[in-house]
Amino acid sequence: MSGAEFWRDLAPEYLRAVRERAPLVQCITNFVTVNDCANVILAAGGSPTMAHDLREAEEAVAGVQALVLNLGAIEDVQAMLLAGKRANALGIPVVLDPVAAGVTSLRREWSRRLLSEVRFSVIRGNASEIKALAQGRGGGSGVDVSAGDAVTAETLPQAAALTRALARRTGAAVVLSGAVDAASDGRRTVLLRGGCPTMARITGSGCMLTALTGAFCGAVPGDPLGCAVAAAAAMGVCGERAEALRLQNGTGNATFRTDLIDAVFNLTEAQLREGGRYEAYEG
Amino acid sequence: MSGAEFWRDLAPEYLRAVRERAPLVQCITNFVTVNDCANVILAAGGSPTMAHDLREAEEAVAGVQALVLNLGAIEDVQAMLLAGKRANALGIPVVLDPVAAGVTSLRREWSRRLLSEVRFSVIRGNASEIKALAQGRGGGSGVDVSAGDAVTAETLPQAAALTRALARRTGAAVVLSGAVDAASDGRRTVLLRGGCPTMARITGSGCMLTALTGAFCGAVPGDPLGCAVAAAAAMGVCGERAEALRLQNGTGNATFRTDLIDAVFNLTEAQLREGGRYEAYEG
Amino acid sequence: MSGAEFWRDLAPEYLRAVRERAPLVQCITNFVTVNDCANVILAAGGSPTMAHDLREAEEAVAGVQALVLNLGAIEDVQAMLLAGKRANALGIPVVLDPVAAGVTSLRREWSRRLLSEVRFSVIRGNASEIKALAQGRGGGSGVDVSAGDAVTAETLPQAAALTRALARRTGAAVVLSGAVDAASDGRRTVLLRGGCPTMARITGSGCMLTALTGAFCGAVPGDPLGCAVAAAAAMGVCGERAEALRLQNGTGNATFRTDLIDAVFNLTEAQLREGGRYEAYEG
Repeated sequence: MSGAEFWRDLAPEYLRAVRERAPLVQCITNFVTVNDCANVILAAGGSPTMAHDLREAEEAVAGVQALVLNLGAIEDVQAMLLAGKRANALGIPVVLDPVAAGVTSLRREWSRRLLSEVRFSVIRGNASEIKALAQGRGGGSGVDVSAGDAVTAETLPQAAALTRALARRTGAAVVLSGAVDAASDGRRTVLLRGGCPTMARITGSGCMLTALTGAFCGAVPGDPLGCAVAAAAAMGVCGERAEALRLQNGTGNATFRTDLIDAVFNLTEAQLREGGRYEAYEG
Repeated sequence: MSGAEFWRDLAPEYLRAVRERAPLVQCITNFVTVNDCANVILAAGGSPTMAHDLREAEEAVAGVQALVLNLGAIEDVQAMLLAGKRANALGIPVVLDPVAAGVTSLRREWSRRLLSEVRFSVIRGNASEIKALAQGRGGGSGVDVSAGDAVTAETLPQAAALTRALARRTGAAVVLSGAVDAASDGRRTVLLRGGCPTMARITGSGCMLTALTGAFCGAVPGDPLGCAVAAAAAMGVCGERAEALRLQNGTGNATFRTDLIDAVFNLTEAQLREGGRYEAYEG
Repeated sequence: MSGAEFWRDLAPEYLRAVRERAPLVQCITNFVTVNDCANVILAAGGSPTMAHDLREAEEAVAGVQALVLNLGAIEDVQAMLLAGKRANALGIPVVLDPVAAGVTSLRREWSRRLLSEVRFSVIRGNASEIKALAQGRGGGSGVDVSAGDAVTAETLPQAAALTRALARRTGAAVVLSGAVDAASDGRRTVLLRGGCPTMARITGSGCMLTALTGAFCGAVPGDPLGCAVAAAAAMGVCGERAEALRLQNGTGNATFRTDLIDAVFNLTEAQLREGGRYEAYEG
């Protein structure tokens, strides 16, 4: 059921849905990578709105198909809470990126509060962020480099266990991004191999994946795990395509960022079908 | 008088003025596209300042040649009001981008207030934004995708009428951006054909045009309609040049954004003269 | 001791230190260029965090190796003060970019206050900014175009004198950026020739150099002048490499920006050794 073949078929189908339905995705997201998040949603075929002002963020939710809350915009966390609750009331999927969730007391307090007051469809973070949410304590150092914490073969069982534990606790599909991504809804756990180390040499690869996940959730609101896996697979395939260009042309991280968004723009269903590398995890 | 030949001569002359006078343009503009707005002003030959803090935005106006107010920065709207009034008092042209003017009650309220308390030289928006200002009510969905609303052959008469109506009501030159742009000062109405659909697949093409319009107004303060038309023509020509590169190289929206700003940097008076497609509208 | 040979050997060594130690650099920096600042730190081999919220900026300092305060983020200046004092208490180097320090009364007041309450390892600005700090009064016009004020052969003695004077007054290593950069710790003064005029045609070349200086200071905390000179030399060499590509490919300022960050990503110790042009200044 959740074997590789299942995901290989599902991801391109959901990509097509994003293009056909062009979901409007509201992101309350940090100022460091907000432009990239908007452009990656547009690249995928969605439409972004970055309405985040406390006086209108909640009202704006009524017109969108998905809501993305990125804790990097910690100054807007009150707006996130109101918008998240409103989205819950309206049945609109909410995606959380718990940027640096465990690093400061402010973020620990607010990530706890968001988890207790908002129901998330998907939570996507790096190892230290997912760990902070799952265990309720600090860890990690990078605030904006969401892809910075490597998940290696040795740490994979622990990463998968954390992912599943947080999914069970929250009811969300959880994605832990690393050299290998783990995704789980508490019952099924999937590993994704893809991407490249250069993704950790730009700011925003994690934020962009979260925004992209929002676009998938806006297009296919009933399947959080499917959307989370499809978006992560798409980003992984695009990361590999951008990395091939970087190696071929001798460019650096700035061109890589541009090529990554371009790859999302040009991503075909066939590329996604052939490029996604999924593995059911029984751990 | 306002025939195609008139604009074909005027636009390159105003572009030369921007390069010669290097106007300092203050933008109170949204965090999503602020970097692109600064870089497009620099590309055109102007100099940007993004001073937006309520405690200094008004004071900063005294040193600039034009002021751009972008309603996407709704959190800075009080600073916009003060800076706008100060610019009026000093005779400095003010350009308004009514981003998502009709989408939330906060934006409806503030766009009404800005229109009643500040005199604008140019107002530039997409169809739903101009409609919201002209009719005083909501419409549209995209908050940050200013180029998202298509103006087609069928809707062109209505778009031109809205543009002229808002120009008459406000005294500003008004530009309604779409597949075809309409510009009017209430007496003369001009249509511009140019650009490309990829402009709606990046965030900020509308904001960049507004910023560019500010640079033209800073260089030629006495001719709002001329500046608005020249800037829109320049952006249209540059959009076509960037699109040609995208199709030739198989790149995507992120490279397109870079190529668009590069095209402004490299735009020659001859390119603008030959590329601008103007049509007087008698409707 | 401070001859060209000395710096030629030191700069590549410090670049290697950045790559080996991968310092975490906290930047409280303006929203216009924050993405570029994060990406240039990543390009150099460091890791950025842009934590700037007043409620956590001070706490976040404890985990970083260097702190960068960019006055362009004038809305966060209270957070800068707290974070700067904390960094002083912890012995973490602090770098200041006094963006538009003399342009508004708010900035004059706060730059005075920051200078009196925080000890800086490095202060880096353009001519009018360094002048404003050194003389305690206004000057200049550009708020975000930090590289806008040219230092020519005629003004070089004055620029070097200002640089040395501010260094003596503050105890910081001071870098005045221009067509020629001057750097001084109050005893030694060094001139750097490098870069290109296109650096003044993008927003953020100054902010990026300041962020890069933070990465060097985080890797080699005991030598502010060495770090300031090495970072400025690196940016100059990269600016020349990006300019060569621009001229070769006929691109513009947007591609130049991307190529500049790529050049930092790909900068080798040999390139930096061969490209740096230093000159001891005895004036």
